[in-house]
Amino acid sequence: MMEDDLTIGFDADDTLWHNETIFENVHLRYRALLGRFHDAATVDQRLFATEMRNLERYGYGVKGFMLSAIETAIELSDGQISAEEIRLIIALGQDMLAHPVELLDGVLDVVGPLAHAHRLLLITKGDLRDQERKLSLSGLAGLFRAVEIVSEKDTPTYDRILRRHGVAPQRFLMVGNSLKSDILPVLELGGVAAHVPYHLTWAAERVDHVPTAEGRFFQLRSLRELPDLLSAMKAST
Amino acid sequence: MMEDDLTIGFDADDTLWHNETIFENVHLRYRALLGRFHDAATVDQRLFATEMRNLERYGYGVKGFMLSAIETAIELSDGQISAEEIRLIIALGQDMLAHPVELLDGVLDVVGPLAHAHRLLLITKGDLRDQERKLSLSGLAGLFRAVEIVSEKDTPTYDRILRRHGVAPQRFLMVGNSLKSDILPVLELGGVAAHVPYHLTWAAERVDHVPTAEGRFFQLRSLRELPDLLSAMKAST
Repeated sequence: MMEDDLTIGFDADDTLWHNETIFENVHLRYRALLGRFHDAATVDQRLFATEMRNLERYGYGVKGFMLSAIETAIELSDGQISAEEIRLIIALGQDMLAHPVELLDGVLDVVGPLAHAHRLLLITKGDLRDQERKLSLSGLAGLFRAVEIVSEKDTPTYDRILRRHGVAPQRFLMVGNSLKSDILPVLELGGVAAHVPYHLTWAAERVDHVPTAEGRFFQLRSLRELPDLLSAMKAST
Repeated sequence: MMEDDLTIGFDADDTLWHNETIFENVHLRYRALLGRFHDAATVDQRLFATEMRNLERYGYGVKGFMLSAIETAIELSDGQISAEEIRLIIALGQDMLAHPVELLDGVLDVVGPLAHAHRLLLITKGDLRDQERKLSLSGLAGLFRAVEIVSEKDTPTYDRILRRHGVAPQRFLMVGNSLKSDILPVLELGGVAAHVPYHLTWAAERVDHVPTAEGRFFQLRSLRELPDLLSAMKAST
């Protein structure tokens, strides 16, 4: 098959493999750990506030989450949390960093064949080593022409990536679960974006408006709908 | 000036700006914090052992150091360390992440002019966001053709970087303070390396043998000696 000149970017966490479900499970155990100090809603709210306060200095990823979770536990317990309980928080985080990679439904059927016809890029944020670990365990690494692990997925970042790979935004399709990180910045650059929602969305990734970009924004229910979208795009050009 | 076809890679921490001195200062305060439990040598030794045990999961950088420091404090105190003291460890780490960037002597005089004559790459490991922050604060970002923040600086990593930028190892000079991360892997690839020692070396970066590579390995006392090395290299080709 001849290579199409459409380059496809894939997000990783919650687009190719499960991630937010792992965080959600850790949140459950974290709430239980702090249950003697505060109700679940307060714990969630304060943890999220700490994460947002620390985002600029820590960036995304498990290690920053662990540090924010420890900091929040000390705050919420007025310093009464024990060293043993803090050790448990560290152990929760270390479990996340050792968690097996579970591919989402459709990934193997869809992404493998696409790699024959298109240049595929993986574009993800988070801890450098943890993202590399997950990609390696996923078995998908060989499908991507390049892997970009970045500290923020905003318009300047996508612009830099597309320039580096010599890709015109009009010939770039980004596929991901986050409207904020995968869709809106790409549409702003003039690219094409396909949103494949995950059933959980981290509060920091939520946006309150649906993008509008006639003919450049697509909502898919599953990655399994991607080949049909590509056929339709090809037919219309 | 015409661009020379020699590409020069620079390490960042302790090659362009001070880093280990900041860690050393934090170690001093950490030893003091744990002084009521153990002597300084034991604290250092156990912290290093924790860091090495966690290296695979955390990678390099300040956040992993913070998590290992908390874990070690809990271990060394048999769980007697207080939440307030753990909060102090977090604050120490956060100070590191907000520390001003102090360039090493000679950097501004040497690196700026080199950027006119050579393609310069920055090749560094550590936390993605922290390295980006330091580069941005350094004022040097514009001098580098590309910035590679990697999870490990070993031979496969350098091989990948050189291939990506179309650089033959024989036309690549790496400049850095770590024999382990900046010099040995580059020599192994057939490249040229200039070692500029920093007055402190983190234990994990120490190697017990001096590289041998006739005509491809150079010891400099300061970055200020780099232009003379380049002239000598040019004259000999």
